[in-house]
Amino acid sequence: METMGRHVIAELWNCNEDKLNDINLIEKIFVDAALKSGAEVREVAFHKFAPHGVSGVVIISESHLTIHSFPEHGYASIDVYTCGNRIDPNIAAKHIAESLEANVVEKVEVPRGKGPVEVKAFNKM
Amino acid sequence: METMGRHVIAELWNCNEDKLNDINLIEKIFVDAALKSGAEVREVAFHKFAPHGVSGVVIISESHLTIHSFPEHGYASIDVYTCGNRIDPNIAAKHIAESLEANVVEKVEVPRGKGPVEVKAFNKM
Repeated sequence: METMGRHVIAELWNCNEDKLNDINLIEKIFVDAALKSGAEVREVAFHKFAPHGVSGVVIISESHLTIHSFPEHGYASIDVYTCGNRIDPNIAAKHIAESLEANVVEKVEVPRGKGPVEVKAFNKM
Repeated sequence: METMGRHVIAELWNCNEDKLNDINLIEKIFVDAALKSGAEVREVAFHKFAPHGVSGVVIISESHLTIHSFPEHGYASIDVYTCGNRIDPNIAAKHIAESLEANVVEKVEVPRGKGPVEVKAFNKM
């Protein structure tokens, strides 16, 4: 497999706070996001924190999707990393941002597996 | 919990190819790296691909560590993301790079949870 990959880092602000605290919903959103982008799901692991917040990952054949949610701040930090050229990580990131009702999204795409790179600034989604 | 976090993205080149294909060893290295940096391990999920390569994640109370290895290229792509100021993700990244015998390491640290940011270029580790 080629090393080249695309890694979308996104900051989701002003999300629906109830959704950010619902582990079952977040897991479903993430699996759906992976499938919608054409990825193959391999492992799923999510964790609910007390008193609030969810962390989780979906390992796909093409790398991973992760989330850390902070319901009390309406914020979620997400990563969508896909190896190869077949899949566009932005499709999954967009699905997640819309599903969590993010009102402000900042994101940056980092090329992976190609050696040293200059990383661009965060952009509005 | 505060949203502020530190996300180290590292590209490990010219690693030990046998180690990059050993799922049990990689899982141990990652759990050790998390503990060494002072993190609390919550979930562990690793997957071995055929004919080669390992993907995996350690979810910690403070966010996550991930890897995707490409033994045939001597390459591993790793992320260490820690929320808050208590833990330095570079400690875990250094442990992983040394354990996988990486000869060339490029990394960048991305601030998370603080709004839009300018991301610096990859640096030698």
